[in-house]
Amino acid sequence: MKTIPLILIGCGGVGCHLLQHIVSCRSLHSTQGLCLRVVGVADSKSLVVVEDLLNKGLDDSFLLELCQVKRGGESLSKLSHFGECRVFVHPESQGKILEIASQLGKRTGLVLVDCSASSDTIAVLKQGVDMGCCVVMANKKPLTSTMEDFEKLFTHPRRIRHESTVGAGLPAIASVNRIISSGDPVHRIIGSLSGTLGYVMSEVEDGKPLSQVVRAAKSLGYTEPDPRDDLGGMDVARKALILARILGRQISLDNIQIESLYPKEMGPDVMTVEDFLGHGLLLLDKDIQERVEKAASNGNVLRYVCVIEGPRCEVGVQELPKNSPLGRLRGSDNVLEIYTRCYSDQPLVIQGAGAGNDTTAAGVLADIVDVQDLFP
Amino acid sequence: MKTIPLILIGCGGVGCHLLQHIVSCRSLHSTQGLCLRVVGVADSKSLVVVEDLLNKGLDDSFLLELCQVKRGGESLSKLSHFGECRVFVHPESQGKILEIASQLGKRTGLVLVDCSASSDTIAVLKQGVDMGCCVVMANKKPLTSTMEDFEKLFTHPRRIRHESTVGAGLPAIASVNRIISSGDPVHRIIGSLSGTLGYVMSEVEDGKPLSQVVRAAKSLGYTEPDPRDDLGGMDVARKALILARILGRQISLDNIQIESLYPKEMGPDVMTVEDFLGHGLLLLDKDIQERVEKAASNGNVLRYVCVIEGPRCEVGVQELPKNSPLGRLRGSDNVLEIYTRCYSDQPLVIQGAGAGNDTTAAGVLADIVDVQDLFP
Repeated sequence: MKTIPLILIGCGGVGCHLLQHIVSCRSLHSTQGLCLRVVGVADSKSLVVVEDLLNKGLDDSFLLELCQVKRGGESLSKLSHFGECRVFVHPESQGKILEIASQLGKRTGLVLVDCSASSDTIAVLKQGVDMGCCVVMANKKPLTSTMEDFEKLFTHPRRIRHESTVGAGLPAIASVNRIISSGDPVHRIIGSLSGTLGYVMSEVEDGKPLSQVVRAAKSLGYTEPDPRDDLGGMDVARKALILARILGRQISLDNIQIESLYPKEMGPDVMTVEDFLGHGLLLLDKDIQERVEKAASNGNVLRYVCVIEGPRCEVGVQELPKNSPLGRLRGSDNVLEIYTRCYSDQPLVIQGAGAGNDTTAAGVLADIVDVQDLFP
Repeated sequence: MKTIPLILIGCGGVGCHLLQHIVSCRSLHSTQGLCLRVVGVADSKSLVVVEDLLNKGLDDSFLLELCQVKRGGESLSKLSHFGECRVFVHPESQGKILEIASQLGKRTGLVLVDCSASSDTIAVLKQGVDMGCCVVMANKKPLTSTMEDFEKLFTHPRRIRHESTVGAGLPAIASVNRIISSGDPVHRIIGSLSGTLGYVMSEVEDGKPLSQVVRAAKSLGYTEPDPRDDLGGMDVARKALILARILGRQISLDNIQIESLYPKEMGPDVMTVEDFLGHGLLLLDKDIQERVEKAASNGNVLRYVCVIEGPRCEVGVQELPKNSPLGRLRGSDNVLEIYTRCYSDQPLVIQGAGAGNDTTAAGVLADIVDVQDLFP
């Protein structure tokens, strides 16, 4: 039986689902000769660590109780009992993670799993890499910080996995990495990588006003609490940057041309969410409607996409053939079209749900299982 | 620098492209700290092995010359010079492969790469597994033989890769394996896994007679020399069986319901290829045309697919919604729709060229690179 010790950083949403997946996959992984040993779980305030670091993991019943506490919106420190484990509070918790990393990293191996959405983990992850740890991320921030941080994390590329940073659990990164290692040159990637913007663009295509569509998307729970977090394109830009960087482009967020669906005058520092949804959005309806009609007159549709081609890395609205994988996209699925030497006329297409805690956590778990050969 | 020694079995078509890819990826792999050392190459008649097995690989210039000989339709034994290597002829060659496997398998590791289309390799691969070798296959035969052979090859699942047995280089197997290891239960896989039959079904959808479409496909080089090898569905059935088996179904080819597009009375033992193409096919036009029209009257189209769902594993013509990834399929692309807990309403879709030596070889090379963590 091969044991993979891991520390989970960020145990709300995705992290919480990951713990549940780990527990429910116990017997499956055991048939594969695999045991995932969760030695620590951290949220932004606390870290819970098992007492016997070298031999034990946190109990499954404890992990499930922890999930329940987090689902209730509480901090880890609200747990009713801690049994055979110890609790460290911020900022002591970060030092403790590194202490464990140095203890286990080169001895039994250790995976640092980052399911947070914070930049605060970057320092710990980088030091973990130096200590021989594997790093699995759903968090986009560490990979979209400076090129220096990115290169540091990729010091040992085989020890890094980050499938769920692009398209949730969709096999996007794994597929691009396979293409790269087979020497098949990637000419162009174009993708709709925001479920929210995919939904918005296919709804306005049907003639609905943008304002109405965004309000509907918000009430369906498709958007962030402030829909401008989606409409601004920054989340898509981070995904585009990650794809561009694994293709070898030495660029940063600043180098990406990002088209926002709302003007600066309607930004969060100028206008409240209520004002934006109430009257700001209405002012944008006409322009989008005209663009939709112009595209339709060319037999095309509008999609909010990222395009990576040669030195070009752009994020914004593009007019695309109605009769293409991206043009046919409806609803909130993600789509990635990859053009290479082998897929030159017709792209390699990967399509499916690109959001959701369940799917994202499944991608993280597949990544953890995938580094098993690096463990003794 | 990590070195991966390998023996290539089968060096026509796909194998020939693989050798060219290996040579052209030398500098790429070197930047990844990787060196692929080709210690032997075999065709059905001969095996060429480097003299200094522990330290050297066959020269790149020699590998390229070897490709040229094979492209000319000649046997390996026709090579003009052998330099620092030795040649063994069948049946001595099989014993020699095993001798090398036992020498290198547990010492430096060895990958047996099967790019043949023969069942003759099964015995060698199985023994190689026992000797600690990794096995990478484009050859479907070893995985579609008995359940016993299949289980033997999967004694150490991490040492086996076979992406190119289904959908050529498309990331089909890798994606299904990721889904399995994340514990996301696969409810249903439905796929169009024959470029030939995908082309045929989308052309008859346009109202063209089957006979005309098959003849056109043959002249475009889309079919086997005898198109009945495609139309019979056995190739698709093998792919379906591989998918079903990695999902854990303990079945064999005999358990798969296969619909042939031609009746037994037009089989290769009854009718010549010329007779089949000349008049046999004409007798099939009316039936297919009627089925196409019936499907169209339901808003559907016909696709030749494999369906794996619960205990069911079928291969044949299905009526599918025009407005689905499979229904929208045109031309010779392969499409796989995977329905799981995470992808329940909308499937995970993987689409792209599913045939061609270049693509198939790229998939094999990605597989070889992917086992690197098992090497010292």
